[in-house]
Amino acid sequence: GNRGRILLKCPDQPGIVAAVSQFLFSHGANIIESSQYSSDPSGGTFFLRIEFDCPDFAGRLAEMRTEFESAAAPFKMEWKITSVTELKKTAIFVSKEPHCLLELLWAWQSGDIVADLAIVISNHENCRKIVESLGIPFYHIPASKENRQEAEEKQQQLLLQYEIELIILARYMQILTKKFTAAHPNRIINIHHSFLPAFVGARPYERAYERGVKLIGATSHYVTDELDEGPIIEQDIERVTHHDHVDDLKRIGRSIERSVLSRAVKWHLEDRILTDGNKTVVFS
Amino acid sequence: GNRGRILLKCPDQPGIVAAVSQFLFSHGANIIESSQYSSDPSGGTFFLRIEFDCPDFAGRLAEMRTEFESAAAPFKMEWKITSVTELKKTAIFVSKEPHCLLELLWAWQSGDIVADLAIVISNHENCRKIVESLGIPFYHIPASKENRQEAEEKQQQLLLQYEIELIILARYMQILTKKFTAAHPNRIINIHHSFLPAFVGARPYERAYERGVKLIGATSHYVTDELDEGPIIEQDIERVTHHDHVDDLKRIGRSIERSVLSRAVKWHLEDRILTDGNKTVVFS
Amino acid sequence: GNRGRILLKCPDQPGIVAAVSQFLFSHGANIIESSQYSSDPSGGTFFLRIEFDCPDFAGRLAEMRTEFESAAAPFKMEWKITSVTELKKTAIFVSKEPHCLLELLWAWQSGDIVADLAIVISNHENCRKIVESLGIPFYHIPASKENRQEAEEKQQQLLLQYEIELIILARYMQILTKKFTAAHPNRIINIHHSFLPAFVGARPYERAYERGVKLIGATSHYVTDELDEGPIIEQDIERVTHHDHVDDLKRIGRSIERSVLSRAVKWHLEDRILTDGNKTVVFS
Amino acid sequence: GNRGRILLKCPDQPGIVAAVSQFLFSHGANIIESSQYSSDPSGGTFFLRIEFDCPDFAGRLAEMRTEFESAAAPFKMEWKITSVTELKKTAIFVSKEPHCLLELLWAWQSGDIVADLAIVISNHENCRKIVESLGIPFYHIPASKENRQEAEEKQQQLLLQYEIELIILARYMQILTKKFTAAHPNRIINIHHSFLPAFVGARPYERAYERGVKLIGATSHYVTDELDEGPIIEQDIERVTHHDHVDDLKRIGRSIERSVLSRAVKWHLEDRILTDGNKTVVFS
Repeated sequence: GNRGRILLKCPDQPGIVAAVSQFLFSHGANIIESSQYSSDPSGGTFFLRIEFDCPDFAGRLAEMRTEFESAAAPFKMEWKITSVTELKKTAIFVSKEPHCLLELLWAWQSGDIVADLAIVISNHENCRKIVESLGIPFYHIPASKENRQEAEEKQQQLLLQYEIELIILARYMQILTKKFTAAHPNRIINIHHSFLPAFVGARPYERAYERGVKLIGATSHYVTDELDEGPIIEQDIERVTHHDHVDDLKRIGRSIERSVLSRAVKWHLEDRILTDGNKTVVFS
Repeated sequence: GNRGRILLKCPDQPGIVAAVSQFLFSHGANIIESSQYSSDPSGGTFFLRIEFDCPDFAGRLAEMRTEFESAAAPFKMEWKITSVTELKKTAIFVSKEPHCLLELLWAWQSGDIVADLAIVISNHENCRKIVESLGIPFYHIPASKENRQEAEEKQQQLLLQYEIELIILARYMQILTKKFTAAHPNRIINIHHSFLPAFVGARPYERAYERGVKLIGATSHYVTDELDEGPIIEQDIERVTHHDHVDDLKRIGRSIERSVLSRAVKWHLEDRILTDGNKTVVFS
Repeated sequence: GNRGRILLKCPDQPGIVAAVSQFLFSHGANIIESSQYSSDPSGGTFFLRIEFDCPDFAGRLAEMRTEFESAAAPFKMEWKITSVTELKKTAIFVSKEPHCLLELLWAWQSGDIVADLAIVISNHENCRKIVESLGIPFYHIPASKENRQEAEEKQQQLLLQYEIELIILARYMQILTKKFTAAHPNRIINIHHSFLPAFVGARPYERAYERGVKLIGATSHYVTDELDEGPIIEQDIERVTHHDHVDDLKRIGRSIERSVLSRAVKWHLEDRILTDGNKTVVFS
Repeated sequence: GNRGRILLKCPDQPGIVAAVSQFLFSHGANIIESSQYSSDPSGGTFFLRIEFDCPDFAGRLAEMRTEFESAAAPFKMEWKITSVTELKKTAIFVSKEPHCLLELLWAWQSGDIVADLAIVISNHENCRKIVESLGIPFYHIPASKENRQEAEEKQQQLLLQYEIELIILARYMQILTKKFTAAHPNRIINIHHSFLPAFVGARPYERAYERGVKLIGATSHYVTDELDEGPIIEQDIERVTHHDHVDDLKRIGRSIERSVLSRAVKWHLEDRILTDGNKTVVFS
């Protein structure tokens, strides 16, 4: 209960670490893990993530936030201080293929992923049973090109009602409107079933097969208003051969998709990702 | 000296393996290694590679070729029978960056790559010393956008003179004309410094950095008249992070390029690659 | 229903492939996939796996087996001809940790693994619900050092009753007696949670942590009467760092174990594995 | 010329980062890269590596060292401050197989490895030419079981004469005495041609072949007085199959050995490795 995190970014200059570590020390906090990165020591952006233990952290949190504002202002920091015990309210969107959803549920049950898994929303019914068996509310919202706006309004209502902070697209095969994506900047994580920027868009395994690639991959990224163009969080690949037809690529790919999405979600939930323009800084 | 290889492709139908293996058995040959692939058992193409030991193979080779033509005709086979001891006459093209050339020379010296390494052609002088120290003729042919045709004529003359069967572009940074590539179908192997089809064309590491990918790669492929669009032979990747700037990507990439090109060249020299339209069948 | 497989091994000599392919051709069979290996062309063992389509295969199978015996005898072949539609009766043994079981069940449901999944046997109750929800009989047989013989007798009875052909130890944490392992040669597949032969025996992740390795792994192998010494089928690894404590190694390891065991089981079920003394020939 | 590094370890307690970052800030230094690790926040050891830019660093270095002593004492730090421009005097030991030496020379020439490469010592003559062609002194010191002590005395003399700070065993196949290893704690880097702790000792590829493993590896470690038991710095593996005989394993292995040793050496030269008992903390 005494574990907290500071995340910040600001223009790089001398003295940032000294200021933050002095602040923590003054609260009796012990730094457990610290990672930093500067995009360019001369005129670039500085990124910092610190995980710390602080006696009576819950009692002190409000005060620390107020006080940190004074330390942060001269450095023009964007920052947040979070408590490890405040779980992020999370929604999973899924279509028919259940493998990414199942992996997330399994990781969540086994404690590998720590979140307040609030709801699952699907445009199909087939995953209802497994979701509800775990006590998670399941909402079926039919969605297609034709009713996109209406479907998103229903989704938005649920996201508000459950105070959702993170949306995971676990092979959700509907395109989202700019209105929707703009409402959740860096809060929607998608899994794309190719090694981006190769095979942006539809049917990536079919196109990988046609091109005759020797490796296939998957990419997890934050969703922006440009399809498959958001900041990449994680990617991985597997080797394939001429023996592997489209169905084999899909089978092999499912395994990559599952692990890539899980890692990305885990890192987001542990506040390990900061964005740097259209890139990510991942303190994994 | 008694080791030979049969390579063939033909429309798939029952009886191909029976015919070929009967042929080899009738010559007292023992099959050492055999690999086959059918793009589609109904109406697809069948690919076969057999490595065999045959008593007095050198003495028999001409006769076997004549005789095999009879076995091959009813199946409409494209085929060749080669001797392992007939080394392929090979030319390496290189520009300034020596790492792929050095890797090939090293693999060649240590016996990992078995070829008749006939010449090295470069549009720069800087690799002359190392090449000549190994007793390999080095030709400096200045090449640029301006003198492309003239340079290629000189290159072609050397390729003819040395009866070159394989051209390796070991980071040769000049674009080849359609005339040149058409003259050497499936006989030019290039290394492209990206994971194709991502980052086709120039400056792939710079573009990988800008896109914020988490893996970089290299691709070895046969050269066709469309830039970076030929049949892919081999690909590989390495993991990178936000810490890696363009120079780091280039450094990490050099290592991938070296091993990917070496593997592709080794497979070609061992007659392990057959083309299937714009794809490769690699019996590695 | 017309898809069959021939698997064989015999002393290497010329003419084996000719004989087998002639046999198949005489039955109008088309070879779909063929893989072979010789441990040594002079005096070694020859291994062959052919997958073929044969008109009216079910009707012909008995006759083909009888007839093949004549072809096989002069070559001293150990062989079998199987039908792809005859699924292997399979039992999964599991203890408390469910991840390997869950992966197998998931792969089985999605069609990636094709077997007659007959029973699950566990020395714990915790996996009963998920197993029974899929319509698979679940047997709880308490097992420990003290009642090993009694437990194995009950297990054997079930294996006989269900005519089990493959036993998968999906993180089953009890040691089996020599009597048990001897009764199922090359029919028990285990997953060991280390990169064998490193960390044979108990507590491999703890010992990996203590040794400070930078990669951890898992190994799937056939079970023999020597602990962790049977023929290795498949292995894989993941990178770890000094940040990863024993619990992290276990978490990362679970993911490796799942995929390594799944691949080994898939290959066994597809008759892709032949044993060569204490090694495996895997035609994957 | 203004780039420096602080490396330290000490018992973990609050305030370490605050003290060090305050010290750097007081000298106008900007932190470029910082990595830290605590083996256990309660009672464990804290490790820190900071790379910084400091105006007039060369002029200030002596003063900073004196001053840092006061900051370090209350925390019981083991520490050093180094300048990036002071290259480490390095010796490479090699036997007959040149691949690791060649890789290091190539990385050194291309600037991937930055060291003062002072001498190469070998118990064979075959690498003399390539070494001397780069202007590096080459010493042939015959070494075998019989003359171990005498050979080491000659080696020690050279190491003293050239003020060597790092010894790289680039496939040096002689066993070193305890006297020798004790004289260079955490200053001798070896490459072992297996995935430790598998196949400790001689003939690892032969033993890997006999065991039938599906992956082979290499391990770079600091040398201690127990053979192959020192702190592991880096490991990597490649996949192999039943087709790969001992010679193939050796060929594939050479490639792994080259890259694993290069990475370990690069990290050591960049002060990225701290030891934690018999383990390493690698801030890569």
